[in-house]
Amino acid sequence: MTGPAPARPSLHGPVLVVGAGLMGTSVGLALRRRGVPVLLDDADPRIARVAVSVGAGDTPNSQSAPQLVVVAVPPDHLGGSVVDALRRWPDAAVTDVGSVKVKPLTEVLAAGVATQRYVGGHPMAGSERSGPLAATADLFEGRSWAVTPHEHSDPRAVALVEELVQVCGASLVRLSPAEHDLAVARISHLPHLLSVLAAAQLTDASPGGMALTGQGLRDVTRVASGDPRMWRQILSANAEAVAGLLQAVREDLDRLLESLHGGADDADGLVDLLTRGVSGARAIPGKHGQPSTRAATLFLLIPDEPGALARLFAAASEVSVNIEDVRIDHDPARPVGLLELSVAEEGADRLVEALNSRGWTVHR
Amino acid sequence: MTGPAPARPSLHGPVLVVGAGLMGTSVGLALRRRGVPVLLDDADPRIARVAVSVGAGDTPNSQSAPQLVVVAVPPDHLGGSVVDALRRWPDAAVTDVGSVKVKPLTEVLAAGVATQRYVGGHPMAGSERSGPLAATADLFEGRSWAVTPHEHSDPRAVALVEELVQVCGASLVRLSPAEHDLAVARISHLPHLLSVLAAAQLTDASPGGMALTGQGLRDVTRVASGDPRMWRQILSANAEAVAGLLQAVREDLDRLLESLHGGADDADGLVDLLTRGVSGARAIPGKHGQPSTRAATLFLLIPDEPGALARLFAAASEVSVNIEDVRIDHDPARPVGLLELSVAEEGADRLVEALNSRGWTVHR
Repeated sequence: MTGPAPARPSLHGPVLVVGAGLMGTSVGLALRRRGVPVLLDDADPRIARVAVSVGAGDTPNSQSAPQLVVVAVPPDHLGGSVVDALRRWPDAAVTDVGSVKVKPLTEVLAAGVATQRYVGGHPMAGSERSGPLAATADLFEGRSWAVTPHEHSDPRAVALVEELVQVCGASLVRLSPAEHDLAVARISHLPHLLSVLAAAQLTDASPGGMALTGQGLRDVTRVASGDPRMWRQILSANAEAVAGLLQAVREDLDRLLESLHGGADDADGLVDLLTRGVSGARAIPGKHGQPSTRAATLFLLIPDEPGALARLFAAASEVSVNIEDVRIDHDPARPVGLLELSVAEEGADRLVEALNSRGWTVHR
Repeated sequence: MTGPAPARPSLHGPVLVVGAGLMGTSVGLALRRRGVPVLLDDADPRIARVAVSVGAGDTPNSQSAPQLVVVAVPPDHLGGSVVDALRRWPDAAVTDVGSVKVKPLTEVLAAGVATQRYVGGHPMAGSERSGPLAATADLFEGRSWAVTPHEHSDPRAVALVEELVQVCGASLVRLSPAEHDLAVARISHLPHLLSVLAAAQLTDASPGGMALTGQGLRDVTRVASGDPRMWRQILSANAEAVAGLLQAVREDLDRLLESLHGGADDADGLVDLLTRGVSGARAIPGKHGQPSTRAATLFLLIPDEPGALARLFAAASEVSVNIEDVRIDHDPARPVGLLELSVAEEGADRLVEALNSRGWTVHR
């Protein structure tokens, strides 16, 4: 008989949160909700007091050695704070919630401390608000949270940090620090900068022209409102990956300018880029990280005959297309009924063909 | 005694809609809802039949001379269709709903037809769907609709087109064709291309990295899903204005690359651009074209004392700041109450200062 399996580490706390802004205070609230003791620290004692007063944790005392330290300070101070935590709490696992992972890790590795207990992390959550009073216990609920062990990370420290992710209600995505930084450059930092570039051109707009703005502009430029000081730190910390992608964008932009100057004869480059844009937008997963099963919407007229709907569903079933949602337009001004069908993208063309060949009027 | 005032033209119809896609059919439905007779035409008779069958109008016959023609065909065919309408209906006013205004006007002016009856238009409405079955009578409700008379446009034709805008429930924005094209280059065509450039970089992303995507990426890239063939036509028709803005973006991009390569010492350029982005995003008017009165959100702790709320409102009133909305956080896990206040941006700093000086804990 072999001995018992080694005990899985379990997050019992106390957890020390360093930095009581939106992220740190939200981590504290999420842990406290699940009964895990939390200690809160901040360079500004007033901020720490506010975080304590909203119930995110207690003020640390000299006796309270943490099991896990969560560093939640601005990007410029991340590496230094992680090093401080590793030095000060020799038995604690240490993680952070910073937006960039390679630069702080490099600083930690260069500091000559024992780094096995450090495991980087990055919850993909935030708010246009900041500070401890904007924090909520469910900030991370359903969001992705990257955990980025380095090659010497202790598996027990990794397991503790992964338990933190679970307690906060987030979904775990394990990546290397370099993979993480390249990924966020592409899905967050570059889109942020392109949003800023679009918004920056609006400062010269005429008021008459601005009256024409619609939802599209609001969507594209929403993230451009983010705090410039914070984004300066994030982008500087990931400068290499961001600059690489910006260089690729610059090449696309030059081809685009060439195509526009070339007139209608040279529209191929323009169409290619627009088509790549459609593919890229389709590659974005659905909410909660599920693969994107894009629904196509079909519109069709329902003839005013008995059994029409039954025949429709029979036709869809014959070509093995699952109708996921149906909406019937009850607009009394229309002499015929209009049906809106949601079907999986991959079956849409098949269903349109099948229905048209049976005499229905269908339109995508 | 002078004679009676000249009769104001009144939109009694029939209105001939040329092109029975999403826009044309929606115009037809909106007019019909207000009792204005509509005739529908399309190069594809099947499309026209569908538009008729959803109640957007009737099939034209040789007797039915229109009072107003609304050309709603794809951008490449706009100028030619307007010229055809002016020739065929010598008593009708003619407008269109195309996204670009200078190029079709130039084609109309070059065609040697009488152009006084032509007045361009552009409703700022659309959908990710297309075709007559996606049309709705309220597509234009509350949206802006640019009307772009040229220098020889007959005021009676302008008045008729402005009445069309009103009947469709849109808000009128009168611009010259050149002002219009520059404005949409800035608020629609350029943001569309920057969204496409961001989305195009996603086609190379790793699946692990894509699992980290959040709402910001979805917002920035949503419009990139638009139909490439349609957008090729729009962008080609407004190539000069779009290329001018893209050139300015390219200069910003080059400064940005320089700043990123220069490291932390050269972050001023980065902060400048990020700050311009914030200003540009703030310049976007609110919905329905009202000026943007941005609300600031303040968070504050409510001490557990009688009369605390009354003292708060008295303090706000003393510094003449109107509290527009209040939300009280009832989270029972918090030992103190948290209040969320909405106030106009311009009063926010004043209120924070006033409250802090009175011993409250307030945070933006």
